[in-house]
Amino acid sequence: MDNIYSQRIEMLRSLMSSKGWDAVVISGSDPHSSEYPSDRWKQVQWLSGFTGEAGDLVITLDHAGLWTDSRYFIQAISQLEGTGVELHKTRVPEEVPIPLWLKQEFGDDAIIALDGLSVAACDALDLPGTVISVPDMLSKFWEDRPAIPQTPVYTIETGESRQQKISWLREKISASGFDAALVSSLDNVAWMLNVRASDIEYNPLVISYLLVTRDRVLWYVIREEDIDEQTQACFDEISAEDIDILPYSDIEYITSEFEGKILLESSINYNIYSSLKAANAEFELQRSPIALRKSIKNPREVEAMRQAHITDGVAMVRFLYYLERSLDAGRELSEWDLALKLEDIRSESEDYTGDSFQTISAYGPGAALPHYITPKDDAPVLRQSGLYLNDSGAQYKTGTTDITRTIPLGDCTALEREDYTLVLKGHIALAKAVFPVGTAGCQIDALARNALWENMRNFGHGTGHGVGYFLGVHEGPQDIRQNFNSTPLCPGMITSIEPGIYREGMHGVRHENLYLCVEAGTNGFGSWLKFEPLTLCPFDCSILELDLLDRNEKRWLNDYHKKVYETLSPLLPEHIAQWLKEKTAAI
Amino acid sequence: MDNIYSQRIEMLRSLMSSKGWDAVVISGSDPHSSEYPSDRWKQVQWLSGFTGEAGDLVITLDHAGLWTDSRYFIQAISQLEGTGVELHKTRVPEEVPIPLWLKQEFGDDAIIALDGLSVAACDALDLPGTVISVPDMLSKFWEDRPAIPQTPVYTIETGESRQQKISWLREKISASGFDAALVSSLDNVAWMLNVRASDIEYNPLVISYLLVTRDRVLWYVIREEDIDEQTQACFDEISAEDIDILPYSDIEYITSEFEGKILLESSINYNIYSSLKAANAEFELQRSPIALRKSIKNPREVEAMRQAHITDGVAMVRFLYYLERSLDAGRELSEWDLALKLEDIRSESEDYTGDSFQTISAYGPGAALPHYITPKDDAPVLRQSGLYLNDSGAQYKTGTTDITRTIPLGDCTALEREDYTLVLKGHIALAKAVFPVGTAGCQIDALARNALWENMRNFGHGTGHGVGYFLGVHEGPQDIRQNFNSTPLCPGMITSIEPGIYREGMHGVRHENLYLCVEAGTNGFGSWLKFEPLTLCPFDCSILELDLLDRNEKRWLNDYHKKVYETLSPLLPEHIAQWLKEKTAAI
Repeated sequence: MDNIYSQRIEMLRSLMSSKGWDAVVISGSDPHSSEYPSDRWKQVQWLSGFTGEAGDLVITLDHAGLWTDSRYFIQAISQLEGTGVELHKTRVPEEVPIPLWLKQEFGDDAIIALDGLSVAACDALDLPGTVISVPDMLSKFWEDRPAIPQTPVYTIETGESRQQKISWLREKISASGFDAALVSSLDNVAWMLNVRASDIEYNPLVISYLLVTRDRVLWYVIREEDIDEQTQACFDEISAEDIDILPYSDIEYITSEFEGKILLESSINYNIYSSLKAANAEFELQRSPIALRKSIKNPREVEAMRQAHITDGVAMVRFLYYLERSLDAGRELSEWDLALKLEDIRSESEDYTGDSFQTISAYGPGAALPHYITPKDDAPVLRQSGLYLNDSGAQYKTGTTDITRTIPLGDCTALEREDYTLVLKGHIALAKAVFPVGTAGCQIDALARNALWENMRNFGHGTGHGVGYFLGVHEGPQDIRQNFNSTPLCPGMITSIEPGIYREGMHGVRHENLYLCVEAGTNGFGSWLKFEPLTLCPFDCSILELDLLDRNEKRWLNDYHKKVYETLSPLLPEHIAQWLKEKTAAI
Repeated sequence: MDNIYSQRIEMLRSLMSSKGWDAVVISGSDPHSSEYPSDRWKQVQWLSGFTGEAGDLVITLDHAGLWTDSRYFIQAISQLEGTGVELHKTRVPEEVPIPLWLKQEFGDDAIIALDGLSVAACDALDLPGTVISVPDMLSKFWEDRPAIPQTPVYTIETGESRQQKISWLREKISASGFDAALVSSLDNVAWMLNVRASDIEYNPLVISYLLVTRDRVLWYVIREEDIDEQTQACFDEISAEDIDILPYSDIEYITSEFEGKILLESSINYNIYSSLKAANAEFELQRSPIALRKSIKNPREVEAMRQAHITDGVAMVRFLYYLERSLDAGRELSEWDLALKLEDIRSESEDYTGDSFQTISAYGPGAALPHYITPKDDAPVLRQSGLYLNDSGAQYKTGTTDITRTIPLGDCTALEREDYTLVLKGHIALAKAVFPVGTAGCQIDALARNALWENMRNFGHGTGHGVGYFLGVHEGPQDIRQNFNSTPLCPGMITSIEPGIYREGMHGVRHENLYLCVEAGTNGFGSWLKFEPLTLCPFDCSILELDLLDRNEKRWLNDYHKKVYETLSPLLPEHIAQWLKEKTAAI
């Protein structure tokens, strides 16, 4: 029991006993339901040592449990050793979700405490018994708890002014019978105000809330007196537009700032939900109209995203050239070395502000895990055979990228060659699809899988996710998955196509590009859409089983490679341009 | 105003005035929400002259309106002429559905009368104001109103006894907290009791209700004293199993027959719903568990369905042979002649009990209407060019069939050839698909459309519907459509694949087979399913654009044709077998 985590849990239990709480729920989320919560909100990690991206804790007086999914089972078992915390598996048939587990333990009479700031209202409302919100509950034990990040804030050009967006939002919510809207998702705030920062890892966001009422706009963002020059300039610009800039914590007085009915985003935290409820405010939780509007990029954003992908394509080609030449020269390279190298190359662009997610640099069996985490220490070293997979992306001031390439390093088995080719066949089938206006991603997902299915192979993740404009690399509301999602793909949306095949202990293949949805014309049968590739980087053709590709698939690949070469070669040193010419030669 | 229909509407208005009703809603449905209501329930037709399969009337003191969809706009305008009834379009963007229209006219204060027997509860509950149910409202004006059909009832072998099915249903509903179930859909009743009759056009069903309680089974079926021998034998057999056989109209006393909570099918009529409500009975409307169970055919049913399709294949080949030879001989044949001829050929089988829906026999432009109705008088005559489409099916005592063939009659345009080939390409793509267990039809619908989409062509109907075992030719809960339907395709389900292309004023192409869903094996990626063709009849290859088909598509077609020839040729006269050999020669 001298484990640091079990000690922390005991401290929490003392508080529970003194307060008469039966259970405490600690979530892995932040007040804005961000995909990558900052260190301040890594409460699950602080209390249990578990570092997985998804996980929630429940502490009772005689039990401590971590709820997480299969991606993290092995990691959880290892990290929870000695903490006294038991693993509860989610997304398995026998799953007992937290609300049900608490009900089985306590019936409906429990007193359950949670940090309402970091739990979404919709999750808190699912809990049985009496739920008490204790903001920043762990701060009293967590001595060196990190502060809320506060990085320089700046404005960017997006092709639409704040005032245009505010007017649009006012009209939109007013038409639905609302008098105000609280924008709480950080990417929605950033989109509304044309601002960016680096408060969140991998996402260029500012931790803040935005309240839009009929006649006022309030931005809850200031954390300290001491504001850097760039941020001050940004604040001055925004203040000049009659937007009130307030302290972040003033969000607790929100009820005094509006009258009538307020629209809350469905991810709103329980703390705000409860204060509005307590104040008898009129409100409703809904998917924010901003989500769909933001997903449809305007021409200025599209052009910038194209530029970002040219920049990223140059970096990727330089990286692939480096990889091939280094291995040819017999240099020893680990997965970690390569992740660093790619970051180095990308960071040479002045537009680069960071990666858009943690690079997956995986050789051989590692690549068989779609969510592989490249180890910093003792990372596997590449050999001149088999497949190396690199799934990475960058945040440029011009846009967000996300690309996966699987690279044969020399001899490959017949199965590797076949898997490699079938995944590319699936990728191309969807990439070259034409489909009617109104089609949702789930209605065309099978096109990317059919070539795999024919051979009784498949992959367990989605085929594609939406991508933001210098915002989150995962952005809704559209996607391309088997799961039902009624949002149609619209011109201006950017979505990944990334089928794969994974064989445990052997290898993994994934081919990923980002695509812009564009109009393809109108005829007697209706109006049509198609995909235009944004990502510019060759697919290695050396191990393709050409027999498995038909004429049209080969034509698509040749056309794509021609575009890659023509766009990137003028921007590359001559010897790399020459190398690219060979890599993009028609098959 | 001397129009017979406007006179009838005026009679109804007198009643409305005397009763103080603001509006009367007349639906085109029967008490069991049957797809083909019998003549007794053709109330919309009796009141307005409109004969379309889908339509509802609303009569107020100063307005009469028919609500129907685009399939019937032209027909409605023509048939409603002089009746004073106005067309209200449904399934169009500007649609004002009946509940909204009534609300706009009367607010929430109207008194709305309807024949609760022929309106589904879920529709009646959508209406504003006070809804009054007047069973058989029109009978007082409708002098020669047809009686409820009463055709001979007989039992059939299905591989599962009534007692097995009743035990299963009891367990199923008990597990969901119910004490009784009212089976009201006629195909569900027929399935439960292994009985068939001919009360409903195209559907071998008995108009009746079945009540299953914890300890009793009651069948509400008897309509007159006078029962034929066959029916008496069937009733005796069923009575001997302790199933109470009661008069059909006794369903009104249902509340005295059970205690506890009763499961009603979601299509239950408003009359039964209201009486249960009035009696304060405990009930819930749900999709009946019978629907899914019935859709998964047992081995005995599968074997019988195979037999039905051999029988039907022989008839279809004889029909196609007759068509070709007659045209070659210069005989004049109309669409109607051909529909009759096919019925004649099919009826030579002793298992034939009737068609499974109204045959679509369409030449040229007629085939461009997916729901074309072949006119009895002055039907178009076939010429030796262009495309003839025949969509038809039969009810055999061994099973239900549904097949569409498009037949080139001579010279065809390049567009006809291309459309013909692309639709077949789409058909084959789905027919040869392999897909993971758990896949729903909407997730693979695109496979049948992709070849069309690539060429910016499409069709506006579903790709496939479920088919019953000697029951309805349209049977849920599964289907293959763009619309979201979460029911997975399961081994034992039978579904059509029927893509098409329709060009107004020119031609229509549709290629339809029925397929049995079967297991395709299990491997490291999971368990797999595929389709096995039930329909056995050649696709005409003479106008195929072979360039548009790839190797695998040609292989599928050759394998299918080989199976067609090998199965059917021993059952055909030698000259037709020889003809079939040519028609099924490998391409």
